[in-house]
Amino acid sequence: MPELRRGPIRDQWVIIAPERAKRPSDYKSSASGDPSSQAPANCPFCPGNESMTPPTIAEAPDGKGSWRVRVIPNKFPALQTYDELGRAAVHGMFDRMNGVGDHEVVIETPDHDLELPDLDIEQLKIIVDMYVERLRQLMARPASRYVLLFKNHGREAGASLLHPHAQIIATPIVPLEVRTQLNTARTYYERKERCLFCDVMLGELEARHRIVDDRDDFVVWTPYASRFPFELLIVPRKHAHDFTLISDEDRYGLARTLKRTLTRLRTLLGDVPYNFVLQTAPNPIPRPGKPGYWTTLQYDYHWRLEIIPRLTKVAGFEWGTGFYINPMPPEQAAQYLRETPDDPL
Amino acid sequence: MPELRRGPIRDQWVIIAPERAKRPSDYKSSASGDPSSQAPANCPFCPGNESMTPPTIAEAPDGKGSWRVRVIPNKFPALQTYDELGRAAVHGMFDRMNGVGDHEVVIETPDHDLELPDLDIEQLKIIVDMYVERLRQLMARPASRYVLLFKNHGREAGASLLHPHAQIIATPIVPLEVRTQLNTARTYYERKERCLFCDVMLGELEARHRIVDDRDDFVVWTPYASRFPFELLIVPRKHAHDFTLISDEDRYGLARTLKRTLTRLRTLLGDVPYNFVLQTAPNPIPRPGKPGYWTTLQYDYHWRLEIIPRLTKVAGFEWGTGFYINPMPPEQAAQYLRETPDDPL
Repeated sequence: MPELRRGPIRDQWVIIAPERAKRPSDYKSSASGDPSSQAPANCPFCPGNESMTPPTIAEAPDGKGSWRVRVIPNKFPALQTYDELGRAAVHGMFDRMNGVGDHEVVIETPDHDLELPDLDIEQLKIIVDMYVERLRQLMARPASRYVLLFKNHGREAGASLLHPHAQIIATPIVPLEVRTQLNTARTYYERKERCLFCDVMLGELEARHRIVDDRDDFVVWTPYASRFPFELLIVPRKHAHDFTLISDEDRYGLARTLKRTLTRLRTLLGDVPYNFVLQTAPNPIPRPGKPGYWTTLQYDYHWRLEIIPRLTKVAGFEWGTGFYINPMPPEQAAQYLRETPDDPL
Repeated sequence: MPELRRGPIRDQWVIIAPERAKRPSDYKSSASGDPSSQAPANCPFCPGNESMTPPTIAEAPDGKGSWRVRVIPNKFPALQTYDELGRAAVHGMFDRMNGVGDHEVVIETPDHDLELPDLDIEQLKIIVDMYVERLRQLMARPASRYVLLFKNHGREAGASLLHPHAQIIATPIVPLEVRTQLNTARTYYERKERCLFCDVMLGELEARHRIVDDRDDFVVWTPYASRFPFELLIVPRKHAHDFTLISDEDRYGLARTLKRTLTRLRTLLGDVPYNFVLQTAPNPIPRPGKPGYWTTLQYDYHWRLEIIPRLTKVAGFEWGTGFYINPMPPEQAAQYLRETPDDPL
């Protein structure tokens, strides 16, 4: 049963998830985890193999008796549903709580061998619809304080299965990284009465040299202090704090922007491993009288998709200092990407 | 020329180091970076190949005309010596400064094929002596605010050369991760008049179930909120804020403890990639009138060596939330390690 732990030195929660553990000897044979060895016949995410996974949570039907997008519980969840949070101090120094939460997998296409940039806009729109639907459902659960949508593509980026899929984890706390960004946005808004992200975006649109794409009401750029080569932000041009309130038109815009951006990355860098992460305002569930909880919709936030290609290794310096060495200036990365065809639709 | 950058959203500096850049097409052929393809004849860290590296900074002679430990500048430094910090605001939103600093490599043995646990205690003692000497030298430089000693072992841990070596980077700011831990230690001390790390260590020694080793005046344990499987701390039992003040006796103690600990890790997990990172008090250089700088020796800190085996991938969830999923409970990890022979000396 998963457990959340926090020590006195770092203000970070850690999920201890022994269900996902291996024996020490299993680490010696690293090849066993190679996702490229999976054939579609053994792939639990392929149509016909539905019995290899836990039961379907939601699906988008294809009108011919099968599905176009399918959502299932993660078989080895990082967090699980419990009755109780079980918050407690351990020996006074340590904090723990039960690993309460949800962990779902969004299978993004029935086709084992396709990748997001290969899909047509209709399919990508259905995927975005499903992201929205699942985030809404999970945000409404009582124990859920934050819901993170993310995608690990390729073994180096942490994927254990090749078949295209994203994951959603609902956590019982607002994670430190998110809280820090929420606080930064709020502080800025209180001083300027403007959204921090809108202001950064306007500056980027004026300067142009880090802009990669600027159509369909979305702006794509490489951040000024990019931690990784070809790190990218996809940001809605109109201020919007909550991804789940996205309009139908913007869902199409996001689908097109995502397709163009991932196409460029793949054309320029090959089948690069990457993570993407959706940052959006935390769950709008009021918890009066519970200090430390977010009790309001945070309108001063701005949702966005972060894409992190995994081309450099995080090593001792990064672990020891929390800051990153990036050999690729973002201005140069943006230029490379701008000069790469986006496979126009 | 390297540059430090900070954006308005994350309070983290990033080093943009274009000297270390590759062209986009280079990322497509990932095999080229495989350190296992290096033969000793082409290894710049092997004796006889000294001309392949920048000139020696310091060395420990072997008494036969060669060296036992050698220190050189990193050929592709993350930070470099400059005249000016060049702190500036860019467009009001962004912070930048020149990549001022130092980046050195400590070649830990002339022998290409040995690893730290293979070395005898005398050699390990000489390595510790050299760590201390270089940290002292770099801490004394005017622009230097923090000095980080770290080691990347294995390709997965970020090593580009196989020959055993550590690295030292002197930075012109105290990194956020370090500052957070310094502040936590200070706040605790102000409330309790005791060292946070000493208190955690006493608790661990009482509970025993996360203790791996407890000899030679060093304590080795798996932290309560371990982020990674088999994450380890090596901590001096007697309170000590500054690694460079370590006694001769404790240098031998650290050499023996390091050898036992790395031997156990290798016996249990094979040649596991790992990072180690030395956390110690920041440079004791007073900067009166410069707010934000540490102006005192921080006696309430406690130096320690963190060992991070790289058995799990950092993926989308970790990037998005800043917290980690660890499938190996630290109590279980400690038990595995305790039951593994430490190759007693």
